[in-house]
Amino acid sequence: MSAPGSFAVEATDGVARAATLVTAHGTVQTPMFMPVGTLGTVKGVDPIELTGIGTQMLLGNTYHLHLRPGEDLIAELGGLHRFMAWDGPILTDSGGFQVFSLAHTRTVDDDGVSFRSVYDGDLVRLRPEDAMRIQATLGSDIAMCLDEVPKPDASPQHLADAVGRTTRWAARCRAAPRAPGQLVFGIVQGGIDPALREQSAAELVALGFDGYAIGGLAVGEEREATFRVTASTAGLLPSDQPRYFMGIGDPEGILRVIAAGVDMFDCVLPTRLGRTGAAMTSVGRLNLRNAGFARDPRPLDPTCACSTCSRFSRGYIRHLVAQRELLGMRLLSVHNMAFLLALCRSAREAIVEQRFDAFFRESIDRLTTGAD
Amino acid sequence: MSAPGSFAVEATDGVARAATLVTAHGTVQTPMFMPVGTLGTVKGVDPIELTGIGTQMLLGNTYHLHLRPGEDLIAELGGLHRFMAWDGPILTDSGGFQVFSLAHTRTVDDDGVSFRSVYDGDLVRLRPEDAMRIQATLGSDIAMCLDEVPKPDASPQHLADAVGRTTRWAARCRAAPRAPGQLVFGIVQGGIDPALREQSAAELVALGFDGYAIGGLAVGEEREATFRVTASTAGLLPSDQPRYFMGIGDPEGILRVIAAGVDMFDCVLPTRLGRTGAAMTSVGRLNLRNAGFARDPRPLDPTCACSTCSRFSRGYIRHLVAQRELLGMRLLSVHNMAFLLALCRSAREAIVEQRFDAFFRESIDRLTTGAD
Repeated sequence: MSAPGSFAVEATDGVARAATLVTAHGTVQTPMFMPVGTLGTVKGVDPIELTGIGTQMLLGNTYHLHLRPGEDLIAELGGLHRFMAWDGPILTDSGGFQVFSLAHTRTVDDDGVSFRSVYDGDLVRLRPEDAMRIQATLGSDIAMCLDEVPKPDASPQHLADAVGRTTRWAARCRAAPRAPGQLVFGIVQGGIDPALREQSAAELVALGFDGYAIGGLAVGEEREATFRVTASTAGLLPSDQPRYFMGIGDPEGILRVIAAGVDMFDCVLPTRLGRTGAAMTSVGRLNLRNAGFARDPRPLDPTCACSTCSRFSRGYIRHLVAQRELLGMRLLSVHNMAFLLALCRSAREAIVEQRFDAFFRESIDRLTTGAD
Repeated sequence: MSAPGSFAVEATDGVARAATLVTAHGTVQTPMFMPVGTLGTVKGVDPIELTGIGTQMLLGNTYHLHLRPGEDLIAELGGLHRFMAWDGPILTDSGGFQVFSLAHTRTVDDDGVSFRSVYDGDLVRLRPEDAMRIQATLGSDIAMCLDEVPKPDASPQHLADAVGRTTRWAARCRAAPRAPGQLVFGIVQGGIDPALREQSAAELVALGFDGYAIGGLAVGEEREATFRVTASTAGLLPSDQPRYFMGIGDPEGILRVIAAGVDMFDCVLPTRLGRTGAAMTSVGRLNLRNAGFARDPRPLDPTCACSTCSRFSRGYIRHLVAQRELLGMRLLSVHNMAFLLALCRSAREAIVEQRFDAFFRESIDRLTTGAD
């Protein structure tokens, strides 16, 4: 068994990659979708179900876990893995994204960021060292550097300042204590400005991390820009280290960041859609609130082998959704994640077999034409 | 394999019994708690989990399923078992209890009952033949006769009228068509009046059913009366047929109806408590909203082997409950049902081993003194 951080690219097809990454809680195969366990739980879903659908790594939110129930309480109860009964790898974000997207009142200075808690309005201070200490206390397998995430409409000066601050904070995060075997990833910022992305990537790579994230995208910018910047940024990162796109979860988006050379990605989309009655399928999205599904005996996706699709009809799930039954949210959430995980496995197989381009085009065609 | 309806008493201890009952979807062992799948789902819980905790038979609500999504739709999708992906036995109630407890506007006559739907206020007519047709269409293993369920404070005349009508309706239910292998149980009414209970039991036994329920109790009457009437009514029923107490789910109540000679019982209590943050344990009820559990590393019940208790701490579940996370409701619901099912298995073992009285007293002591 290799040491945590070992990363081996088994196959490339174009710039798409099939790789393996070793963590303190096991080895994962990429491209890999990571379900999000915001508050120490993937909403409504049991870890046994996550294992059943082939989940390899979970994401935990440092911002939320720091505020509720607090990392010290989690450590007292055995750390985040034990707390949520998930033995596999966990990546924790740094809290930066939430601080910059959720907080109504926040002030940033070079030392850190102060913000109001969404839970009780308390003033909270988060410095790079705090973000790393919280993640070390949680005991995650991959910790993320604290970054400054500008709004997509930020001024050029603000974007440039955020890149500089993100680099200086990354240096402090890199120097901070870690949990045993914990990896640390840097986060490239720079909005959709190629020069700033280049600067951010170069500065972080010079510092040297176990992997690199592409942050500050899929936050409201024009969609083609997302993938253009992803591809150019991925090309600036070391080919022998993992690349993580933060926050993408629609099937087409996942295929496009894989095509751009990304290895890992996460999103709350599959569970959020599940809780609102929507199913992801190979032919596009289904809205199960639609009365047209009431007598439909087919599974959500006839090509899906998940525990929802192998047992339940659209008619049954439509009934649960219409009656706001908890099981409906659950069955949809499990299916949606199973669908994305299977999509990633298929993408990996296609890369290994050097037919990713055809797989990509056929998958996108099916998703967008929606023949059903 | 014996025919549906075969009932064998393996052991008695006092009047408590350990028996087996054959249904079209399998043989069950009593005493047996039946989780309630009101609308074709045990709220928040997956059938795989129900199997995992040893559920033998589920209860489905005719009233709710008739109104949402309707028995014809369920039949079109393969019947209630297929619809909800539960291969084991299902008992359906007749809808009587809901009609008489939920409906704001209802009128009873000898032919049937008219009421307003709780879903949309539509006027609905339910006659004994309708109740049986709905249950035959759902394809349940045990169908219940339509009965009139008086309020606990009903006048003597009203109670007597309800008994007479329940008998006449039972005769019509008995004559109605059934699903293949479907058993039909009569329901003894009569409030807490021994003479009326005697009359009701005698009239139903004279008609002849596959089993007999004790209805109209645990609806607000004084608690000692519940168990006194249960014991006297059970004694009026054939010793070679199953006895079903409708609607009891607290651990002490279950032990007391078992002690009175009852074989089957159901209640929404374990799932309802689960959704409100409460756990049933061998030493009484825990309220997981209590901050005192925040750092408690113990399982909900250290004597419980369920999938919740074998993996999660009280501290974790308290966190989920405090944050209103769906998984909290789920883990508590599964545990509460697992606890009741295990209690019934222990009671059965004690009956078989002729030590039920000691088991009963020790269990009640532990439940009520709450040493923890």
